[in-house]
Amino acid sequence: MRRTLSDIAEATGLAAAGRLDLVIAGAAEPAAAGPDDLAMAMSPKFAEGLAAGKARAAVLWEGADWQALGLEAALFAPRARVALAAVTEALAPGHGLAPGIHPTAIVADDAEIGADVAIGPFVVIGAGARIGDGAVLHAHATVGDGAAIGARTRLCEGVRIAHAVRIGADCLVHANAVIGSDGFSFVTPERGAVESAKETGAVASDARNVALRRIHSLGAVDVGDNVEIGAATTIDRGTVADTRIGAGTKIDNQVQIGHNVRVGETCLICAQVGLAGSSVVGDRVVLGGKVGVADHVRIGNDSVLAATSAVGGNVPAGSVLMGTPALPRAEYMKILMVLRRLPRLADKVKEMQKKLGL
Amino acid sequence: MRRTLSDIAEATGLAAAGRLDLVIAGAAEPAAAGPDDLAMAMSPKFAEGLAAGKARAAVLWEGADWQALGLEAALFAPRARVALAAVTEALAPGHGLAPGIHPTAIVADDAEIGADVAIGPFVVIGAGARIGDGAVLHAHATVGDGAAIGARTRLCEGVRIAHAVRIGADCLVHANAVIGSDGFSFVTPERGAVESAKETGAVASDARNVALRRIHSLGAVDVGDNVEIGAATTIDRGTVADTRIGAGTKIDNQVQIGHNVRVGETCLICAQVGLAGSSVVGDRVVLGGKVGVADHVRIGNDSVLAATSAVGGNVPAGSVLMGTPALPRAEYMKILMVLRRLPRLADKVKEMQKKLGL
Amino acid sequence: MRRTLSDIAEATGLAAAGRLDLVIAGAAEPAAAGPDDLAMAMSPKFAEGLAAGKARAAVLWEGADWQALGLEAALFAPRARVALAAVTEALAPGHGLAPGIHPTAIVADDAEIGADVAIGPFVVIGAGARIGDGAVLHAHATVGDGAAIGARTRLCEGVRIAHAVRIGADCLVHANAVIGSDGFSFVTPERGAVESAKETGAVASDARNVALRRIHSLGAVDVGDNVEIGAATTIDRGTVADTRIGAGTKIDNQVQIGHNVRVGETCLICAQVGLAGSSVVGDRVVLGGKVGVADHVRIGNDSVLAATSAVGGNVPAGSVLMGTPALPRAEYMKILMVLRRLPRLADKVKEMQKKLGL
Repeated sequence: MRRTLSDIAEATGLAAAGRLDLVIAGAAEPAAAGPDDLAMAMSPKFAEGLAAGKARAAVLWEGADWQALGLEAALFAPRARVALAAVTEALAPGHGLAPGIHPTAIVADDAEIGADVAIGPFVVIGAGARIGDGAVLHAHATVGDGAAIGARTRLCEGVRIAHAVRIGADCLVHANAVIGSDGFSFVTPERGAVESAKETGAVASDARNVALRRIHSLGAVDVGDNVEIGAATTIDRGTVADTRIGAGTKIDNQVQIGHNVRVGETCLICAQVGLAGSSVVGDRVVLGGKVGVADHVRIGNDSVLAATSAVGGNVPAGSVLMGTPALPRAEYMKILMVLRRLPRLADKVKEMQKKLGL
Repeated sequence: MRRTLSDIAEATGLAAAGRLDLVIAGAAEPAAAGPDDLAMAMSPKFAEGLAAGKARAAVLWEGADWQALGLEAALFAPRARVALAAVTEALAPGHGLAPGIHPTAIVADDAEIGADVAIGPFVVIGAGARIGDGAVLHAHATVGDGAAIGARTRLCEGVRIAHAVRIGADCLVHANAVIGSDGFSFVTPERGAVESAKETGAVASDARNVALRRIHSLGAVDVGDNVEIGAATTIDRGTVADTRIGAGTKIDNQVQIGHNVRVGETCLICAQVGLAGSSVVGDRVVLGGKVGVADHVRIGNDSVLAATSAVGGNVPAGSVLMGTPALPRAEYMKILMVLRRLPRLADKVKEMQKKLGL
Repeated sequence: MRRTLSDIAEATGLAAAGRLDLVIAGAAEPAAAGPDDLAMAMSPKFAEGLAAGKARAAVLWEGADWQALGLEAALFAPRARVALAAVTEALAPGHGLAPGIHPTAIVADDAEIGADVAIGPFVVIGAGARIGDGAVLHAHATVGDGAAIGARTRLCEGVRIAHAVRIGADCLVHANAVIGSDGFSFVTPERGAVESAKETGAVASDARNVALRRIHSLGAVDVGDNVEIGAATTIDRGTVADTRIGAGTKIDNQVQIGHNVRVGETCLICAQVGLAGSSVVGDRVVLGGKVGVADHVRIGNDSVLAATSAVGGNVPAGSVLMGTPALPRAEYMKILMVLRRLPRLADKVKEMQKKLGL
């Protein structure tokens, strides 16, 4: 996608200087940039690479002396990552799928297909499904009976949307994600091993999981607008009500969201997080990579759980937690500090015991 | 699936009272229920929602006064989750796939296809594969050469069954699961980094992984009857013998089961569990979410490993373990309690040192 | 694949004795071996099973008395697992896909397809993509616009290679893996919850993630030669430069590799590992199952991180680390030992306090 620097300045809202007629072919790291690349050098440290590369134009920090850096033109970023968002958006290629319905796609007769959709090869759309205007379904995506895909939403290759699932508008679902698989919910006719272990701390001899009876998932999944769902992420349908993902929430790859879970709006859920059944996550919550949340646990708004932490109890709004089981960050840090010198602490205790004749 | 309440009572075996001729359209939470929904209100707490909803019939606890709750009819659940299993089963929709072989499916000439199968669009079935009576293969499922799928087993969209894998009868494999990928097994011609680290705690300079040679997987995967396998779960084939999953075992989403693993019968394996190569899991074992089991470890029958725990050594039958490395629950709880007040403990030790002049 | 023992001896380079004209049908564990199987009995312990089985030939340890074990022929393995690699390679079946392009595959007019490729049913190859000589693309694999697949590389069923991604020669990508999904990278217009939490340990009331702006992924993924990538593994594309995987590296199932990550050569990355964005992994590094590496962290060459450990800071070359947060193995072991007797330590401290009247 070739654009003039002047175009890019307008699209991004960044201040510009120098030859705005330069045609930009792409973005690059400063040292690897060719003459048509826009070098991303939003700090003096990154700008050091400019000399090694061939960029004529760069995105710099506010107040940078672009001419002294040997450039012919520059954009200026008041906040580096915000500028990165704007510039990468301006230079992003399109989705690459031709408009229309590919002849190999199988679309149920009674499915409602909106205007200006692009439906790729081998896509399957079930009975009664609705596909919103401008939606893009890449090759091999499947949409179950009665499911609904919002306007301008994009399903990448191999995405599985099960029956009756609703995906909002302007969503992006990455390859091989599965939305609407059945919940993992079983019950033993009599008291089972888990109940016994939770109650008594041991598995009673009469509490073995001799038979497991399936609880079926009659609910669906309801995903709000402007949600992103990562590759190979799985979201189970609800038992009676729907599993719900709030508008604006972003979910990374390989996240597992169990049945009946309710995630609020504008959350960030990093890769390999697991939310067990019926957990409730508030708005604007950040869950770091590999975080685990136990079933029925409630996480308050604006909380941040550090990567690899795991919570088994409710979390008040605005908490910053770390560790397994997760503790408030300050408390965790103090414990950790003592933990690292625990062998010395034990030695001291031994020494004192000796002294005290204990 | 509309059914009369009398039908549902019969299918579930639950005691019923009131207008059993009511036609039920689905299940709902009490407050969200419409006039044709069966409200799930198996405890007084849940029944509070009935007033806000429009349900005329509900599933209540034993002995509940259904008329006082304003209902026209009720079912009674002696054990709430068992009733939930029965009621959701009675109201579950079918699998939605038309019987027969979709014209776009590619079935090898010498594949054996049983009676009454349903094979969806773009399914691929390899040479010599056998598909049992009544099996259901949803769109995009693939079955490798010589693989066998048992009677009434259902493979959801995008499931990959590799060559020679055997899946029992009455199984359910969720979307994008992979059964029969190669094991992850490599060897260095000379002693490598892992061996060195295990033996000496350090990586010797002559023990670098300069080259990695592949150990191929000649075995397959053998899955028993009545097994459920979650979305995006992966099960590797064995090296020489087969990887085995026992009858009645239920496996959640994104579980990883390595080569040569043997899982017993009627286990519950929650999401994101990882079983390393050659580990052995007994019967009726429960593994909580994200549990890790090291290679060659044996887990005894009826054990319960709490979510996020990890085990590196053998586990006796009937154990209840928590933490990383996993410890018996009582021991873990005691340690955890001291751990939380570790900074105060360290302060006390310092105080005593001072007093003792150490 | 039936071969004479003499053929297998030649292919593997193992010393042989006895009837080398025996025709071998496959490998088997000693006790389960049939008369045409080669029993894998590389230690006296495994050889005990020979009596129960029917093998006439076995792979034994060096110097074993094969005749005393009742065998008609034997191969001898100086290093058991190296021999296992050689023997399983000699007996491995082929990939099973017929050469040529299946009539249902959709190949863009301007895609370059090398000699002797095998392209299976429902494969989709995008505009300008290049497929190297002898490459094998199994059913349902998709290759995006401008992507390149090296010679003899094999993509299993349902693999998703996104646009512009480059995969080297002699690679093997297992079913449903996704290479080239977008990075998970968002920014708040003003300081957000994560920045606030990192700086101050708390989420400031003015630092809520009210809006999230997307940073697009303009880079691709560059995978070297001779790399193996596991089932359902996901590798995100870079923001500006490419995400890179070095030659000879082996990646297990369900591994998540974030945007901009650089992994060196000949690494072993076990199942369910997560590498956060912009992390850098050196050469010959071993990451055990479920290891987590935080964003921007650098792992030095020849390091070994034990299963389930997690690192948040840089790791010097040759380190052997365990735990969360990961510590040098010796230090971790010492702490762990004290940790297990922590309740007793606390009791002692209490006893001393009493004695000291504190």
